[in-house]
Amino acid sequence: MAKNSNFHPVILAGGRGTRFWPLSRKKRAKQLLALDGKQTMIQQTAARLLPLAPTVQFWIITNDDLRPAILKQLPRIPKPQILAEPVGRNTAPAIGLAAFILLQQNPDAVLGLFPSDHVIADEARYRATLEQGIAIAAAGPTIVVLGIRPSRAETGYGYIEAGPMNGGALRVRRFTEKPDAAKAAEFVAAGNYFWNSGMFLWSARTLADALREHLPKTAPLLEEIAGCFGTRKFGATFRRLYPKCENISVDYAVLEPRSAKGELASNIFCLPADFRWNDLGSWTALHEHHAAKANPADGNLVAASGTFLLNASRNYVHAPGKFVAAVGVSDLVVVETSDALLITTRQDAQDVGKVVKHLDAKKLHKLV
Amino acid sequence: MAKNSNFHPVILAGGRGTRFWPLSRKKRAKQLLALDGKQTMIQQTAARLLPLAPTVQFWIITNDDLRPAILKQLPRIPKPQILAEPVGRNTAPAIGLAAFILLQQNPDAVLGLFPSDHVIADEARYRATLEQGIAIAAAGPTIVVLGIRPSRAETGYGYIEAGPMNGGALRVRRFTEKPDAAKAAEFVAAGNYFWNSGMFLWSARTLADALREHLPKTAPLLEEIAGCFGTRKFGATFRRLYPKCENISVDYAVLEPRSAKGELASNIFCLPADFRWNDLGSWTALHEHHAAKANPADGNLVAASGTFLLNASRNYVHAPGKFVAAVGVSDLVVVETSDALLITTRQDAQDVGKVVKHLDAKKLHKLV
Repeated sequence: MAKNSNFHPVILAGGRGTRFWPLSRKKRAKQLLALDGKQTMIQQTAARLLPLAPTVQFWIITNDDLRPAILKQLPRIPKPQILAEPVGRNTAPAIGLAAFILLQQNPDAVLGLFPSDHVIADEARYRATLEQGIAIAAAGPTIVVLGIRPSRAETGYGYIEAGPMNGGALRVRRFTEKPDAAKAAEFVAAGNYFWNSGMFLWSARTLADALREHLPKTAPLLEEIAGCFGTRKFGATFRRLYPKCENISVDYAVLEPRSAKGELASNIFCLPADFRWNDLGSWTALHEHHAAKANPADGNLVAASGTFLLNASRNYVHAPGKFVAAVGVSDLVVVETSDALLITTRQDAQDVGKVVKHLDAKKLHKLV
Repeated sequence: MAKNSNFHPVILAGGRGTRFWPLSRKKRAKQLLALDGKQTMIQQTAARLLPLAPTVQFWIITNDDLRPAILKQLPRIPKPQILAEPVGRNTAPAIGLAAFILLQQNPDAVLGLFPSDHVIADEARYRATLEQGIAIAAAGPTIVVLGIRPSRAETGYGYIEAGPMNGGALRVRRFTEKPDAAKAAEFVAAGNYFWNSGMFLWSARTLADALREHLPKTAPLLEEIAGCFGTRKFGATFRRLYPKCENISVDYAVLEPRSAKGELASNIFCLPADFRWNDLGSWTALHEHHAAKANPADGNLVAASGTFLLNASRNYVHAPGKFVAAVGVSDLVVVETSDALLITTRQDAQDVGKVVKHLDAKKLHKLV
């Protein structure tokens, strides 16, 4: 596998991942945690992509809270390419800015948009899929989205409805936001629906054109910021203009707009991905991910200095350094840090973000 | 209320209280913890009795693990009167040794036997009851046991079946160990059953005579140890002979033996006690005790630096210094210390002693 001199991974690392509180914090967001293995999620994201592009071609878009930690975790990525948004503006302005900067540097640039906090198994297959997608994106004015073959009727994801094969990829018919359980089951049974992985590939030129078309107010602002990249004016211009950009996702801004006939643009393709993928959306998802690997008989996963488990099953406990005794409890999620203790259930773990909302509202800054 | 120069409180403080793990440890047993208020349980026990006797008349029977902490917590009790058993031999040898020592010093001594880890409300009523009992015990060869009027059909306590009134106290007909639920309900309905509080009053002479009669092998050993009290030989004699004493409770050795007719000795009396009493037998009992005082609407009691409770009810959480978030959980008991984390339920909290058994068996000395 050769590194591709035109491929530029753009890693999005501005999220907070509040569902992993109390481990995740404003300055130590989910992507900076080693939730799966020794490397952090963002380190794994970068390492996975490194066989496809040298580090000088990597870009990271984050914020001021997280940038210092990212600089430490990924010291080989050029510092100016680790951009801290002055304010969060969702994915369209983020990837758009990268596209306009890269277009100045390399008219043949192909961008890949990658979340920084997902788990991917089968890395060789992952990279083979990406290489295929990069080739498609480089060949024409095409947008490629990686679609994950659904393994269950998940209601927490967006779905892609794909049409017939077209040159190695499937034509995208429709994007559908999080469906209800019945719809999700229907999608999975239909066979031509895929989970939207949040991973996209396109040439800088295609993306720039799409942004000029669909975000005519925002695109010129991004071009002006991009024009200052590498100069002294960049920081001030970024801070001044970026907040004026529309707060919108690339899916919504570029992929989903329909023609007057109600049809999607014909140049959006879904590349079916057969590698195992997990977005680790909650403590429960992390529990299931680890349990699938370790497969403990009682379903308990306990990070501790020692354990005593009696009539305890399917619990996830994170209390490293402590002896944990669990007696007569099941389906609990308990996470302990030096200043906080979370006690919830596998079912309620998706509501952990509400704790952070409360802490934000109460201005308990040290705890968020 | 005047101090009584013949009344000698003997506080038993050799228990481990393993059901309060991880807070209770071998060197920091339940009675040394401030489970209810600012003072520790043993400090409260002593303070409650102080209006009845000066500190020079107090005795404490404990062990080598706990004695250093007790010396610190109760600095005004004469050090030689804080006895560390070389091995635990249950209550009969412990109170017996005190009786034989006191008999040498004061032939009119009245001993009171007091557990060191119970909660008592209505202290004035408690002391008035004791004064009545002390008078009865001083007047004749009588054994007085304080009986608690049962407020529920508790199966975890011993019961006293009382007969007709006899000079201010009830004649004891029978001691019954922990009954099953049906029997317990029957006892409560009957009206003449009381919980055995573990608090006894008797003269040193009566107790000495009873021990000589019922424990003819052990009594001479205790007399020999007592004979050395205040001399250089005491420590060595105590360590040599005490392990040879029978391992038996005072209830079983002295109170329950029956005559050939199957009747209890006629000199055992039950003094009905109307003060509120709680032996705090588990985290759940402590939870209920605190909830009865604080009466929180959702039943949660959380010791923490801050809390966020969402769909959470009837939980007991002890994590001082931490922010505790509980989401979607009920009837849990969670206790955190610097080295351990207990997660159990209100129902299973009585099994916490099993954790300590496991730690003992695994020789995890730092954790017990």
